Order: sequence, then C-alpha cells, then structure tokens
Amino acid sequence: MTRLSRAAILAVGSEMLTPSRLDTNSLFVTEQLNRLGIEVALKMVVGDDRDELARAVTMMLSRVELVVCTGGLGPTDDDVTREVVAEVLGLTLAEDAAMTERIRSRFSNRGLPMPEINRRQAMVPVGATVIENAHGSAPGLWLERAGRVVVLLPGPPRELQPMLRGLSEGPLRDRGPGLSIVRRVIRITGRSESHTEEAVRGLYADWAVAPIPIAATILASLGQVELQLSARATDAGAAEAALAAATADVSAAIGADVYSTDGRPLEEVVGRLLVEQGLTVAVAESCTGGLTTSRLTDVPGSSRYVAQAVVTYSNESKTSLLGVPAAMIEEHGAVSEPVARAMAQGMRDRAGSEVAIGVTGIAGPDGGSPAKPVGTVAIAVVTPHVIRSRVFRFTGGRDMVKFQASQAALDMVRRLLQEP
Amino acid sequence: MTRLSRAAILAVGSEMLTPSRLDTNSLFVTEQLNRLGIEVALKMVVGDDRDELARAVTMMLSRVELVVCTGGLGPTDDDVTREVVAEVLGLTLAEDAAMTERIRSRFSNRGLPMPEINRRQAMVPVGATVIENAHGSAPGLWLERAGRVVVLLPGPPRELQPMLRGLSEGPLRDRGPGLSIVRRVIRITGRSESHTEEAVRGLYADWAVAPIPIAATILASLGQVELQLSARATDAGAAEAALAAATADVSAAIGADVYSTDGRPLEEVVGRLLVEQGLTVAVAESCTGGLTTSRLTDVPGSSRYVAQAVVTYSNESKTSLLGVPAAMIEEHGAVSEPVARAMAQGMRDRAGSEVAIGVTGIAGPDGGSPAKPVGTVAIAVVTPHVIRSRVFRFTGGRDMVKFQASQAALDMVRRLLQEP
Repeated sequence: MTRLSRAAILAVGSEMLTPSRLDTNSLFVTEQLNRLGIEVALKMVVGDDRDELARAVTMMLSRVELVVCTGGLGPTDDDVTREVVAEVLGLTLAEDAAMTERIRSRFSNRGLPMPEINRRQAMVPVGATVIENAHGSAPGLWLERAGRVVVLLPGPPRELQPMLRGLSEGPLRDRGPGLSIVRRVIRITGRSESHTEEAVRGLYADWAVAPIPIAATILASLGQVELQLSARATDAGAAEAALAAATADVSAAIGADVYSTDGRPLEEVVGRLLVEQGLTVAVAESCTGGLTTSRLTDVPGSSRYVAQAVVTYSNESKTSLLGVPAAMIEEHGAVSEPVARAMAQGMRDRAGSEVAIGVTGIAGPDGGSPAKPVGTVAIAVVTPHVIRSRVFRFTGGRDMVKFQASQAALDMVRRLLQEP
Repeated sequence: MTRLSRAAILAVGSEMLTPSRLDTNSLFVTEQLNRLGIEVALKMVVGDDRDELARAVTMMLSRVELVVCTGGLGPTDDDVTREVVAEVLGLTLAEDAAMTERIRSRFSNRGLPMPEINRRQAMVPVGATVIENAHGSAPGLWLERAGRVVVLLPGPPRELQPMLRGLSEGPLRDRGPGLSIVRRVIRITGRSESHTEEAVRGLYADWAVAPIPIAATILASLGQVELQLSARATDAGAAEAALAAATADVSAAIGADVYSTDGRPLEEVVGRLLVEQGLTVAVAESCTGGLTTSRLTDVPGSSRYVAQAVVTYSNESKTSLLGVPAAMIEEHGAVSEPVARAMAQGMRDRAGSEVAIGVTGIAGPDGGSPAKPVGTVAIAVVTPHVIRSRVFRFTGGRDMVKFQASQAALDMVRRLLQEP
C-alpha cells in the first residue's frame, strides 16, 4: 500500500479569494499531518468553480499522495466539491439512503423538515468511505484511487477539526509514513539575515548528512531574524535530541545575538531574566511612545517586575519628571546619549527600580535634521552594575522606527542581564 | 496587447507551509488587483522548492494572464524565485551592475560591507523590468512572455506594499481591464456584529438594485466591526459617488458608533479631533501597560498633542505619581471608577493637558476575583468640560483585554470630543 508521505491542501470557496478572508483551516490541517510525519508540499485556494477545482485536484494528484480538500460540501448550487472530485477520480455518485435519513433526523431533531436541497449532501461516490460529521449536516468523504487518497472535509472549523482528529487517530495514522516532524524556532537580533546565513551556512552541510537530517529556513522580519529548524524521525524523542544538538550548533556559531531558542519573544526573555535575578524595571520613553512598556507588559505576570514607566515627549517633561538637566539638553540635544543616560538614571531613581531604560529619538516623519535624521534613536540602560548607551540609526516609517527602537532597548537589557 | 483580467497569486516560502504561518500578503495583493478590476482566480503557496515552484508558475500561466509571486527574492540559497521563474519563461540571468551598486550602498549607508551573497539579488533576467524597492535590498521584477505577465515581489509587507502600489498606478492599471472596483471601509465600535447587521440589513436590498450596485461584507474583529462596501463601474468617479451615498446611509442607520468612514484607525480619528480643537492629552495607564499611549503615538505628528503618559501598576505609584488618595484605593479597590477618575484628574493636573485618560483594570491571567474577574477595566476620561467614567468587562486573553481596553479608552475620548 502506498504510504502517504506528501500532502496538498485545497481550500474551496470564492470568499477566500476576496481581500478580507484567508484559508486558516490549512494551519490546523498542516499541524495534524505534520504530527504524523506527512509533509505539506503545497496549498491552494480556488473559488466555487468546477473547472478550476477539477484542474487543481488533477494537478495535486500528480504531485502528492494525499489531497485534503476543505469547503464546498454544503447543500447549495455553489457547493461543487463532491461532484467535481468524484468526476476527476472517475467515480459515479449514488444517494446513500442511510445518510439521507441521518441528515433528515438532524433537521427533525430541531423540529424542522429537511429542505430537499440537503439531499445532495447524501450523494456519495461509489467506493467512498463516509466520515461522520457530529457538528453539521455535511459528511466528509475518504476517496481512493491507485493508492492516492483524497479527503473531503467541510469548511467550518468546528466541524472539520474533530473529523480530521478522528482520521489522524485512525486511517491517516495507519497510512502515514510512521514518522514525526518536530520543529524549533531560534530568534536572533542584532545581525542581518545575510550575516546570519553566513554564520550558519557551514552547519547546513553537516545537518544534511546527519543520521537525522535537519532542515533550516531563515526568515527576516523587522528587528529580528528567525531560523526555523525541523527534523523528522520515526522516534520523536530522537528528532527532539537532534534538534537540540543543532540548536546548540547555532548558538555556538552566533553567540549572544541568539535571544531565544524556543520561539519565545524578546519581551518574555527579558521578563524571565528579571524574575530570575529578582529585579524590577522602569522605562522612560520618548520616541517609542509607550511601545517598549506595552511590549514588556504583554507578558503575563509582568506587573511583578514592571515598576513604572513614563512617556516624556517634551524637553520640559524630561527635566521635570526625570530630572534631566536643561543645560544638558541644550548642549547635546534631546536625542543624545547623555540625555538617554540621564533619562534612565532619573527614571531608576524616581521608580526605585534596579533596572531602567531611557529611549529618546526621532520616529518621524518630521523632526529630522542632517545631523540627526529620522530614525536616529539614543538608548541607555542602567542596571545595578553598569550603565550602557548607544545611538542607533533605524530606517523605515514611524511604526517601524518605534518597533526597532523598542526591540533594541529590550535587547540591551537582555545582553546586560546575561553578561557574566 | 492582452488585457490582464484574471490573476493568480503565488506565495513562495517553506515557512508558509508550516502550522504557524499564513500567506497574508495575498489579501493586500487581491485588494490592489480588484481595485483595477482584475479578478483573482486562484492562490497558491509552495515551499522554497525549485520543482514545485516551476510547476506552479507553469500551471498558472496556462490559466490566467497575470501571476503575482511574493517571496523568495532574498540573497540566500533558499531564495530561488528569480532563477526558477526566469527558467520557466526561458530567460537568462545577468548581473545588473548598477543594481549591485545600489545594494552595496544600502549596506554602506549603515556602515556595513555588502555580504557577497547579496550579489545574487542583482541577477536580472534579460528583458525584465526592475521594480525599485525603497525599503529593502531585494528589487522586484516585471517579466513578460506572449502577453502574459509575471510580477515578482519581495515577501516583507513593508517592501511589497509600496512596490505594488506603484505598479497599480502605472503598468498594472494601463494593462488592466479598465474597470474600477472601489471599496470603502466603515469602522464601528460599541456594537456587535449582529447588531450592526440588523441595523444595515435593510439597506442591502436597495443597494443591490441601484444603478451602480453596492456589495457589502461585515467583518468582526477585536473591539470593532468593519463594514466593507464595494462598487464596480467603468467610471471610478461614479463608483466613488455611489459608495459615498451608501456610506451616508450607513452613518444614518448606525449613528455615533461609526468612528471612521474611510478606514482610518481610531487613534488617528482621536488625534485629528485633538488637533482640530487645539487640545493636548495625557494618559495614566495601569492594565493597558502603555498600549493606549503607544497607539496614540503611532500617528505622525502626535508629539504635538500627546503631552505625557505614565504607567502605574502599583497602588503606591498611583498615589505618589498621580495623587490618588490611598484611602480611596482602600475603600473602592484599585480597579474602580473613583480610582480611574482620580487617575485621569491627577494626570491632567500634573501634565497640564486639557484632556486626560485613566485606565485601571485586570488584564489577567492572574489577579481576578469573583467580584472583579479578569477583564474588568475601569476607564475615565476628563475634558475641559466634563468627566466621564465606566466599568467594562472584556473577555479573552491578556493581549485581547489590553487591546479592547485601549480601544474603549480612545473611543470615550472620541465620543466626548464629538459631542456638540
């Protein structure tokens, strides 16, 4: 019997081709399949269109052993999945009288007659296995031809999810490759995508020929780079161990720029360091406008270590609230390392915290100058042992500058707290 | 010349075949294409896999006139879109020396050497038109064969979006079917999706039979409901006028719960009201942890009207920073209308602003009680004329409570400033 090792996911529904709806079912389907070691090779969305649907299923059956279709199983004219897939597989449809009765009783249980159009949902391709739907009137179908499998599931997540879970514990598990795919997300900040790639590229060759090979993908997003690793093995524990070893390789190659080896966001990493070291933090923000504090307080339990924060846009408020000398602002400018340091120190003094952050910069679009263009941000962090400051030049629009500055500020705290 | 009337969208990247990432770029691409009257016939996601990518592009070119590919244009080994698409179209690649220099200068502007691997991004298929990327190192490409067009765009939304907007105002508009689909997003807060639907349902029938019919979709998201209207016509001005009339119908039916008729976010609506009325605002936040201020300061120019903000988690800081009487906290609890009002008033006094916000609540997951469960939030807003306060009960996790509370606080400011 052909093992199902590669799958394609096909979502059917014209609404998912509009500017406001995505096929989110595919995430759940992917998770369930990956868990069985079945890899998703491609995903597709087509409208309620017989021709496009037939071509998509035909193409998929030429590429993979398993096609999971979601949606288009309803009773109305635009629900064409059942008929089109049967046609592609060369199967004829026949009414399943027992199923008609089940659908009819679903309606009568609610005191309703079954609309005649719902009879369509009882049309089953000859040779198909019916997948019961406990939460709706559209049953699913398991169809097979020449060792390839097509599974049809209804679109609503509350109907689809229990049906697919049932398959994952039965026929899909039995027909799968008997493998597990495990994943790990390593997060990096302070170096570019290319510099990350240069640092880890040498590892790829070793990983590719390891007893349990590791696949890697690098993804850049604002203020950080993600390295996604995955391993597949018959033994999930062995795959986890191989991933742990690969993660250690990456940490050795990249060093302190790795801030998380388990996908945790930076604010959570910083929060855990503060808790472990019994420290509280206070934040004085200018250009980030509260974002640094908001990220810190996204973490459950952060009220225990976020002491206080202020947003001080104006020079006067920097002086009156944080005690930054007016003469210092006059001499160095509000966006300068001395002012950032004075903000952090003033914030720490007034909040009585051990750690404090000072951020002052130009988020734009206005306020830049040739010497200090938009994106110039001075950040200082003070801890019980040390004060450190730095001027950054970020690119991009206002929200991008805000995010990158908050990322750099949190990262400075992390590095200081991780120093031996 | 072939008119581009049907399109396919292809997202390239193995990460989008994992259980945690979706191709969200396709929503923006669809919106831009629809606006030009170009219909999206199918969408697909493939991994960083030469074979799958080649087959997908070939299949799409047999089905539609326009293929928009996103992602896979980076400098690393797994970025294969450029090469594979050139191969499918039978074009050879050559290094564009001017582009290499532009990429090099992007790095040197940040004081970095260009990694050699970035040179790959300057490999351009002969005959292709380069689409400049103002926000990243990967340029886009416009490729043509036999009247069919393939557009390659980088994956990061901040790079892709301005590039596609540029095409929509130039070559894509010129090559499109000459129809306009115009859309309008009406944003509503303070009523549910069903209550919105009940209020506007009666309008649907009129819109459907109007000379320029209006299509409507209701979408609920956290703390708000969006009503998306669209009209298609050869004359964009006539379509805009029809939409404007429909928007007026909605405003009449829903009243003050409509906060924006042009898609503007709430923080921008509030910012404009403050500017128009010459007022400044200060914010005292507890459970929202800086989010309310961060949203206010997302708006360009907000430094002119955001006077000051503090984040006061602890009772002591509410007393020491805002002058909330300890006895009041003792009597009513920190999460109460009197404390929210005292926070707002204390904040206004110390910041010298005209308007102030006080937010105090329980974001969770800990800290709830039977009388004040997680999600209980007291909000007060004080203006030159009035003070108003209210207790809300929000549902959902910590980040959801934070967002809904910030939304409610900003909306209270909006409603007070809009009162006659």
